[in-house]
Amino acid sequence: MTTHLLTAADLDREEALLILDTAQQMAEAMTGREVRKLPTLRGRTVVNLFFEDSTRTRVSFETAAKRLSADVVNFSAKGSSVSKGESLKDTALTLQAMGADAVVVRHQACGAAHRLTQWIDGSVINAGDGTHQHPTQALLDAFTIRQHFGRIEGLRVGIVGDILHSRVARSNVDLLHELGAEVVLVAPPTLLPVGVDSWSARVSYDLDAVLPECDALMMLRVQRERMNASYFPSVREYARRYGLDSMRMGALPDESIVLHPGPMIRGMEIAAEVADSSKSMIVDQVANGIYIRMAVLYLLLSSKKGEAA
Amino acid sequence: MTTHLLTAADLDREEALLILDTAQQMAEAMTGREVRKLPTLRGRTVVNLFFEDSTRTRVSFETAAKRLSADVVNFSAKGSSVSKGESLKDTALTLQAMGADAVVVRHQACGAAHRLTQWIDGSVINAGDGTHQHPTQALLDAFTIRQHFGRIEGLRVGIVGDILHSRVARSNVDLLHELGAEVVLVAPPTLLPVGVDSWSARVSYDLDAVLPECDALMMLRVQRERMNASYFPSVREYARRYGLDSMRMGALPDESIVLHPGPMIRGMEIAAEVADSSKSMIVDQVANGIYIRMAVLYLLLSSKKGEAA
Amino acid sequence: MTTHLLTAADLDREEALLILDTAQQMAEAMTGREVRKLPTLRGRTVVNLFFEDSTRTRVSFETAAKRLSADVVNFSAKGSSVSKGESLKDTALTLQAMGADAVVVRHQACGAAHRLTQWIDGSVINAGDGTHQHPTQALLDAFTIRQHFGRIEGLRVGIVGDILHSRVARSNVDLLHELGAEVVLVAPPTLLPVGVDSWSARVSYDLDAVLPECDALMMLRVQRERMNASYFPSVREYARRYGLDSMRMGALPDESIVLHPGPMIRGMEIAAEVADSSKSMIVDQVANGIYIRMAVLYLLLSSKKGEAA
Repeated sequence: MTTHLLTAADLDREEALLILDTAQQMAEAMTGREVRKLPTLRGRTVVNLFFEDSTRTRVSFETAAKRLSADVVNFSAKGSSVSKGESLKDTALTLQAMGADAVVVRHQACGAAHRLTQWIDGSVINAGDGTHQHPTQALLDAFTIRQHFGRIEGLRVGIVGDILHSRVARSNVDLLHELGAEVVLVAPPTLLPVGVDSWSARVSYDLDAVLPECDALMMLRVQRERMNASYFPSVREYARRYGLDSMRMGALPDESIVLHPGPMIRGMEIAAEVADSSKSMIVDQVANGIYIRMAVLYLLLSSKKGEAA
Repeated sequence: MTTHLLTAADLDREEALLILDTAQQMAEAMTGREVRKLPTLRGRTVVNLFFEDSTRTRVSFETAAKRLSADVVNFSAKGSSVSKGESLKDTALTLQAMGADAVVVRHQACGAAHRLTQWIDGSVINAGDGTHQHPTQALLDAFTIRQHFGRIEGLRVGIVGDILHSRVARSNVDLLHELGAEVVLVAPPTLLPVGVDSWSARVSYDLDAVLPECDALMMLRVQRERMNASYFPSVREYARRYGLDSMRMGALPDESIVLHPGPMIRGMEIAAEVADSSKSMIVDQVANGIYIRMAVLYLLLSSKKGEAA
Repeated sequence: MTTHLLTAADLDREEALLILDTAQQMAEAMTGREVRKLPTLRGRTVVNLFFEDSTRTRVSFETAAKRLSADVVNFSAKGSSVSKGESLKDTALTLQAMGADAVVVRHQACGAAHRLTQWIDGSVINAGDGTHQHPTQALLDAFTIRQHFGRIEGLRVGIVGDILHSRVARSNVDLLHELGAEVVLVAPPTLLPVGVDSWSARVSYDLDAVLPECDALMMLRVQRERMNASYFPSVREYARRYGLDSMRMGALPDESIVLHPGPMIRGMEIAAEVADSSKSMIVDQVANGIYIRMAVLYLLLSSKKGEAA
């Protein structure tokens, strides 16, 4: 992670821990002070380049950047030159020429963030590219797990749901494995990717069998659009076999926690009483997302300050 | 008004006057100085959470917050997680977790702002919830009336138009009554709510009869979508009976003023020559809206500064 | 250019050179320093009032304003009061009342920026009004040409494409002529306006004949929507006769440069290898756009600082 943050797989153990530790410092700096703003990135410009709508992720990066005193420019591809036929390359060259110090990109195509680095001298931060990667999500999940258990090494983490289409799952498998956790993927066969056996994770089709051994259980969002695509028989059937309700929560170990990247659909992949239970870290994940993104922006941009000067 | 501003009815006389007086100080602070910006809310984050489009109101709050040096994040529900099935509760918990100090909310459902307060520790400011309330609008109207007459007590204020669907009318009736004005509602019977006789206001169906006694006349916007819903026979018929034209303006007392919350449709509820006349306070209302919103943000957020530290 | 910037034609030679020189100073101020931000416009509010989508232009103005420490408010007409029937006048009066120091306006109607000046005391900057003018585009083009050649006087500039609908062409003809360049317009007869013979430019239908004498060649974007309107027979035919490919680029003088206002459609009006060639100034144009807009905002707003105080 010298210039960009594209995939969780790019991070070695040391780099990942540096981000988590820096995020911890950010968390402390924000809670201890009256004015929750650091002057670190004053004069820097962070561009949010979103080809897909994602208000939550955009707002999280925007808030993180503003807390570091950076200027933030939102560039939504809807109604932009992109819809007039401009290529990704030319959009990138434009942002580069405008002097963007960091480009946070969300794109529907796998590899889009990586392609941007060909044309952008500033830092590219992948905020989700197709079904591929979403590294800051994995980092905030790891931060949340470490916050609760004091460590990640040796823990067992279950990831449940639509693994096939999930960049969150891919990023988490990479990062959690690097940090020494054991990952179990739980999904119906139709929602597992071809080649999943080469991932650094075990696979199970049976949520109930996996529950008793999970320190952390991560429920993935079920995208309504998949339902009509016959990936699973029905909403009800999915919820019955892979949804997390109170009864299943009862089968988790006492110390265990439940995570969800949001936005969640209560009553679908997760019951309302689970989402609101003391095991649920969902709100902590959002708060930690700000600290992780502050840490990533800080580490990527402040190191380059010397070069630019 | 200790933490939130949800309805005009929540404000007692003393609180309402404190806001008006603080807004007056804001107005003076802004006009006297070269740099129109106060450092008061530096490091604070104000989120504009808009489930309905309202560029004017959003821009007014955004400008007010920036003049107090707060960071502003715009969260439009269009194309956000909300459209992916996320509940209001989870959106609220997300903003809360992101550390929003104030959430300015516009929502199509009555009571939405109130419900947000269950989940948000920061301040919730109602910027319009369905047909229910829009308290900062009533405050800026009261400010504008007081600016002109030097007082509100004892004045007679007519509110004309679609009372049934108007949060502006509800908020104004509450606040003006609290501040000692007498309110007359003028509308066709189809545009008056059931139970209007319990409101702190008189009712009239006859605009011409009311005009000579009004110190201030507030024209409400007619929403085109109502026209097809047979609330009134035709645009022309509505304008003829309830529109404010030059002739009717001539029947108002000499000192009287005309208000409109905007956006107005010239030629419909108000004639162009009335909107542009010296009686019209419409532009003043917009300017005063900034000062009122600065005052509300200041009073709600700066008091909590001690707690947060 | 005392208060507004509406058309390139309004600028005399001295004013135009002042903007170019100020932009040069901005460029130097931005590249030399660690914190790329000047405190010049602190406390000033710049409103981007966009009735047409143009993310690139909006982001350029937004970045320029933020680098001068102004507050920026984006006011997109989509989903705003405008769609509820509000007039341009009332939108203008609203922004005026909110205390906008500058309004950057993009509008589909010729003359919209000019009309705004009737109601706005602050500075109005035309960011494109219909097919009429886009003066900051012409200024950044002139800046880019001067940067390369050290002068503008005596140069020959070809402008190729849909002159009929191009505000970029109109603005460039005005400014380049004022600064002493000779302009040649190259287009099929169907894409030339009636009365073009009164413009300060020569006209040619034959790109190949013009190439050898051009110091700078400016390719205009072909709008896909024109293609169906039978302004020209087909995309292929257009590209064959008026597109700039490698072969044609070879016919340009050695020192010559190629410009494009963006967004471009590679393979249509310009070949990919031309856009990426060393002759291409397209990326420089974007970077220079920031400096030009900083200069314009600075010159318009800082001069009024005294008045406002």
